[in-house]
Amino acid sequence: MLKDKNDQRTSLSELGEFGLIKHLTKYFAINCDTTEKAVGDDAAVLEFGDEQVLVTTDLLVEGVHFDLSYMPLKHLGYKAVMVNLSDVYAMNGTATQITVSIAISNRFTLEALEELYAGIQLACTNYKVDLVGGDTSSSTKGMLVSVTAIGKAPKQDVVYRNGAKPNDLLVVSGDLGGAYLGLQVLEREKQVFEANPNAQPELENYSYIVERQLKPEARKDIIMLLKDLDVKPTSMIDISDGLSSEILHLTSQSEVGCNLYEDKIPLDPQVISTCEEFNVDATTIALSGGEDYELLFTISQDDFDKIKGNPHLTVIGHMTDKSEGVHLVTRGNQKVEITAQGWNAMKEE
Amino acid sequence: MLKDKNDQRTSLSELGEFGLIKHLTKYFAINCDTTEKAVGDDAAVLEFGDEQVLVTTDLLVEGVHFDLSYMPLKHLGYKAVMVNLSDVYAMNGTATQITVSIAISNRFTLEALEELYAGIQLACTNYKVDLVGGDTSSSTKGMLVSVTAIGKAPKQDVVYRNGAKPNDLLVVSGDLGGAYLGLQVLEREKQVFEANPNAQPELENYSYIVERQLKPEARKDIIMLLKDLDVKPTSMIDISDGLSSEILHLTSQSEVGCNLYEDKIPLDPQVISTCEEFNVDATTIALSGGEDYELLFTISQDDFDKIKGNPHLTVIGHMTDKSEGVHLVTRGNQKVEITAQGWNAMKEE
Repeated sequence: MLKDKNDQRTSLSELGEFGLIKHLTKYFAINCDTTEKAVGDDAAVLEFGDEQVLVTTDLLVEGVHFDLSYMPLKHLGYKAVMVNLSDVYAMNGTATQITVSIAISNRFTLEALEELYAGIQLACTNYKVDLVGGDTSSSTKGMLVSVTAIGKAPKQDVVYRNGAKPNDLLVVSGDLGGAYLGLQVLEREKQVFEANPNAQPELENYSYIVERQLKPEARKDIIMLLKDLDVKPTSMIDISDGLSSEILHLTSQSEVGCNLYEDKIPLDPQVISTCEEFNVDATTIALSGGEDYELLFTISQDDFDKIKGNPHLTVIGHMTDKSEGVHLVTRGNQKVEITAQGWNAMKEE
Repeated sequence: MLKDKNDQRTSLSELGEFGLIKHLTKYFAINCDTTEKAVGDDAAVLEFGDEQVLVTTDLLVEGVHFDLSYMPLKHLGYKAVMVNLSDVYAMNGTATQITVSIAISNRFTLEALEELYAGIQLACTNYKVDLVGGDTSSSTKGMLVSVTAIGKAPKQDVVYRNGAKPNDLLVVSGDLGGAYLGLQVLEREKQVFEANPNAQPELENYSYIVERQLKPEARKDIIMLLKDLDVKPTSMIDISDGLSSEILHLTSQSEVGCNLYEDKIPLDPQVISTCEEFNVDATTIALSGGEDYELLFTISQDDFDKIKGNPHLTVIGHMTDKSEGVHLVTRGNQKVEITAQGWNAMKEE
């Protein structure tokens, strides 16, 4: 949790902007041989041969995407990187570099920023990517983190959203709904704490789903697994906004329909038990929850034998002709049209 | 100026995030043959041959970097791009793509965002760069714009900050101090307006310096000029924080000293007259003002004949041995040590 470490406060103005960036990035290692020049000049210089360069960016805003009353800054830094790397993996690419820009009000100390960057650094180390630039600014209110990730892939390996064909199988990695439910648990504990500041958070029974919310992992391992299995998806996307929203992206861009089978959607036992406790439908949570950062992709039926029985992958449906529409086939064998109910960043508040 | 166009307000929530991005980017052309895939997938795909890829990013925060009471949104969009392209040119590269992420409070209408993106689009058109991605988020307060620019250059063309040698000539493009003085004029008019809302802004006599502040241009033309002249700088940086700060970057990274000659610093007549009016020293403004986005570079003395007499370039000093330090040689022939007094983004407010 974010603590006010009054015993070691350092004013940011003592360092200045250049000193701050230098201070915060001095322990970052260079992991990639494509990194010719990292932090310290006007721009980063990257060397690529015949590879394609992948670039993606995401913005996390305090009070919109995260709440520092339960999101430790180190986890925030880690998650901000994961959100972006996930997009590179969703292209079947290898993430190689990131840039990180932050805007912060002067309520944050240097130690708080160090926590944030410790999380960024851990992400860089775990995923072998290099921090190659960024910008640090003051803000009039709160914190904002903007990350851009760069990756590469041989041209023939890149997977778009628009390549799915009728009869392709729809596959998802891991399990769904945990990140959203973890957030609900954290929000509930926050309210308990606000009503009674002496209350201790009760999170033991929710460790998996809380971790899914606070420290998601981008599925680099799945990209490597697919290469090992010699499977190239026909289309792919990462699940940031919820399964239904992502399926609609694949079907509309590929101009196909889809049947998704409710009984195939992978759910962790903790997701099921927490849904019962909160009296919400687990399928709805998986469809609309978002932030799971799993990979959703389609493969040719010819590749089914290669992935069959793999514990990390679940076939949850198949693509159809566009005219058949996009449907959830329920446990009761009813067909329900899928509409986007994913998290909407622009909703009025 | 930002107006409340009540006659054509569109709620952002009507569009949703994907609709908004699609709406805002639908008229953007693809300018570069390296752009394989722009907006619309998880990541942009860029094709580079044997070139080096340049990446740079900058964050502009309302209330810190801009004031919408006198910065029109279209100009803000244009400037946010310029600030980043300037960094690519400062590497002697060609800017090719940008990503733009924005966070906005719900006081902004769709029409306001369209103005912002019109400025971004104009910059893309004028500088032949492609918008290839971004993120749009709500914020709890104000507006924030984060831009990442990507560029390329053959490896042998890239110019770093660390290549200056003793006896190299120090050269600057254009003239200095205008952007900072333009800001002072705008701040003064804002105060007049706040005291008397019927007052009309008096900006006719300040058109050049106000434009330097509100609509700066990145010096792509200088990079092309240097290629035409067959001059490769030994070191280069863009002037975002003020001449003194940038000279100190070049000298510290190149491990050289420098003599800068006060009487050589290029100043526009409007800068000189406005300095007299505001009773400030023009040299101080040029040294510390910032935001001019001119290029500061060093060249071998052998190349002097190639740039001599060029109206866009001014030799303002020369590099020395590191032991001689970094000095301003005043009109009165005194040597004054140069210290960084550039704009400090992290100062306490």
